Amino acid sequence: MSDHVYKKAEIVGSSKTSIEDAIEGALERASKTLKNLDWFEVIETRGHIVNGKVGHYQVTLKVGFRLD
Amino acid sequence: MSDHVYKKAEIVGSSKTSIEDAIEGALERASKTLKNLDWFEVIETRGHIVNGKVGHYQVTLKVGFRLD
Amino acid sequence: MSDHVYKKAEIVGSSKTSIEDAIEGALERASKTLKNLDWFEVIETRGHIVNGKVGHYQVTLKVGFRLD
Amino acid sequence: MSDHVYKKAEIVGSSKTSIEDAIEGALERASKTLKNLDWFEVIETRGHIVNGKVGHYQVTLKVGFRLD
Amino acid sequence: MSDHVYKKAEIVGSSKTSIEDAIEGALERASKTLKNLDWFEVIETRGHIVNGKVGHYQVTLKVGFRLD
Amino acid sequence: MSDHVYKKAEIVGSSKTSIEDAIEGALERASKTLKNLDWFEVIETRGHIVNGKVGHYQVTLKVGFRLD
Amino acid sequence: MSDHVYKKAEIVGSSKTSIEDAIEGALERASKTLKNLDWFEVIETRGHIVNGKVGHYQVTLKVGFRLD
Amino acid sequence: MSDHVYKKAEIVGSSKTSIEDAIEGALERASKTLKNLDWFEVIETRGHIVNGKVGHYQVTLKVGFRLD
Amino acid sequence: MSDHVYKKAEIVGSSKTSIEDAIEGALERASKTLKNLDWFEVIETRGHIVNGKVGHYQVTLKVGFRLD
Amino acid sequence: MSDHVYKKAEIVGSSKTSIEDAIEGALERASKTLKNLDWFEVIETRGHIVNGKVGHYQVTLKVGFRLD
Amino acid sequence: MSDHVYKKAEIVGSSKTSIEDAIEGALERASKTLKNLDWFEVIETRGHIVNGKVGHYQVTLKVGFRLD
Amino acid sequence: MSDHVYKKAEIVGSSKTSIEDAIEGALERASKTLKNLDWFEVIETRGHIVNGKVGHYQVTLKVGFRLD
Repeated sequence: MSDHVYKKAEIVGSSKTSIEDAIEGALERASKTLKNLDWFEVIETRGHIVNGKVGHYQVTLKVGFRLD
Repeated sequence: MSDHVYKKAEIVGSSKTSIEDAIEGALERASKTLKNLDWFEVIETRGHIVNGKVGHYQVTLKVGFRLD
Repeated sequence: MSDHVYKKAEIVGSSKTSIEDAIEGALERASKTLKNLDWFEVIETRGHIVNGKVGHYQVTLKVGFRLD
Repeated sequence: MSDHVYKKAEIVGSSKTSIEDAIEGALERASKTLKNLDWFEVIETRGHIVNGKVGHYQVTLKVGFRLD
Repeated sequence: MSDHVYKKAEIVGSSKTSIEDAIEGALERASKTLKNLDWFEVIETRGHIVNGKVGHYQVTLKVGFRLD
Repeated sequence: MSDHVYKKAEIVGSSKTSIEDAIEGALERASKTLKNLDWFEVIETRGHIVNGKVGHYQVTLKVGFRLD
Repeated sequence: MSDHVYKKAEIVGSSKTSIEDAIEGALERASKTLKNLDWFEVIETRGHIVNGKVGHYQVTLKVGFRLD
Repeated sequence: MSDHVYKKAEIVGSSKTSIEDAIEGALERASKTLKNLDWFEVIETRGHIVNGKVGHYQVTLKVGFRLD
Repeated sequence: MSDHVYKKAEIVGSSKTSIEDAIEGALERASKTLKNLDWFEVIETRGHIVNGKVGHYQVTLKVGFRLD
Repeated sequence: MSDHVYKKAEIVGSSKTSIEDAIEGALERASKTLKNLDWFEVIETRGHIVNGKVGHYQVTLKVGFRLD
Repeated sequence: MSDHVYKKAEIVGSSKTSIEDAIEGALERASKTLKNLDWFEVIETRGHIVNGKVGHYQVTLKVGFRLD
Repeated sequence: MSDHVYKKAEIVGSSKTSIEDAIEGALERASKTLKNLDWFEVIETRGHIVNGKVGHYQVTLKVGFRLD
């Protein structure tokens, strides 16, 4: 990370199956428009409830990416 | 969520297998006594250690439910 | 936990597959040098991104262990 | 508050017009089932956006009430 | 805590003599209506001042109890 | 929010009249460049003082919007 | 704010009508004894409940003022 | 607290015997120069260690007092 | 504290009688293995409930000690 | 800041020499793509260690800029 | 700090050159009106941006001073 | 950081000259007993005041190091 400048963006991914899958979904979408994605930080984990079960997980991430 | 009033309750689920399973267990139990469960927020993730492994996960949630 | 004194240590585990696997890896390593491990608390979840996917999860834990 | 014991409940009110109106709506509903409501604390203010405007405010409160 | 689900409630006890006495008072009252009380967490300590002295302590607790 | 990915942006609105008006001003401006605005969260409320009165309110929001 | 030193004081205003009115009341009173008031930050919003309605709002502010 | 404005000051009391005694000491001193003291909030509890024992407790309080 | 380097350790003491006694117990144990203990900070106060009363208090401390 | 709307971005600067230099580096880079930069807030200070010395500082900032 | 009572005040210093210089400026000004200044705590570091560079740093401190 | 486990320790460095110098002093001392130091995080910056000037800075760090 030595002489670079990084920017962070905050994104929310969702998944019906797991927290990890929500993270992967968010990263997949972010990588379409942001180059040089380097790390993520989980900020919040929540979700919707449908019929007494998890409808889907919603995971808020900060992603860091290097500016050219 | 337009004109309704919601209430939140704080519950703790546990599971020997995964964080997601602890969440599902908490929601399943909560849905027995609380109607109209709508969303959850993960507040804390912890657990007990048995012989150097996870004995079980304990996940504290806030659940939101609509008041009639 | 009645009349004992406990100490906490802060460790970071990593895994390419899941948050739970990173926790287990950290506990496995901690149990090599710390006796009487009793509980853990998840402090932070983050990770590295490789080619728009999770390269590995990094989970920071506090582990509590009983002092003799 | 001298020798009493109080309990807190967490509720979420909503309103299309103002933060204060969302608070009043939450208190009005809470007072139907909780006696001796004494004070409230605003925990979070958020809302939905519809066509670039506030659709409704959602205000999360803790309300304190005296137990008999 | 293995396979159970727990719920938390937030209560406020008060006492003219000490923080510990305010905690005991809150637990005594809570145990009248909540079964299987298991642990408490101190959230906030405050109080009223009368003539430059502590009039009474007010201690906010979360109490955890096992759901059957 | 089921299978979508959302992004959050942080904006600050200001108003001479009210907190709600500062929120509406921020949303109006944000909607010019961000599509699919869905929700907001109030992060901070502050303002400038002019002659012992509120000169204007400054409200910091996070706004969430759906990525296509 | 270039070469000045500022001090902050913490005050609590109250109003039966609105959050903004409680802020204005606190600033009006503070300006009687503090010169060069420059900005405020809302720290906490709470209030008393009377008959299931807001009795009055209590808004805690930090006010910043320039030292001569 | 209806139509008044309050101010808060932050003070630190100390005692060799107990947390409560440190609070009382801080309030006693504060009441010499501040009129109309109304409530306190415990912000931090710490202390010095002498020969493996508590040398003295240091308790940081915010005290609220009514402005005339 | 002028030119020294200090280290902090996190410990948890417990007591059936009081918060202060739990702190003293933790310090007594820590002083067996850590030299030059200098100060402590209370991080968390909690405890177990037995038959509607405090079974024992559990107080988490950070202790600071000077490295030679 | 009267009638404008501002946006915040989160950036991370790095420097081998000082915290201030890391801040300046981040601002220099940000000013290439963001107009009307107005203020910054330090969110986090950390860094890498090389051979027991600071390899470089990494300072996370939020920068605020006025939207036209 | 044994048997004394301390008070804290919150001040903001500024400097065009460094964070340390802003701290020194705040302490110099505070020492004109507050006796027995003993310690400081950095609460917030921010600043204004002028032409893509730091215009000046603004550092918010709490200063503790002994009451006679 | 891929397949390793890391541990964190909390240390406090001090310096009469600057925040950076206090960080370097803490790292220098830590590197005498901890191998494989990898990163640090600044947790708190404070200091003592002597005659209205900074007597010395005290910077609390968490340092992360790889376990073999």
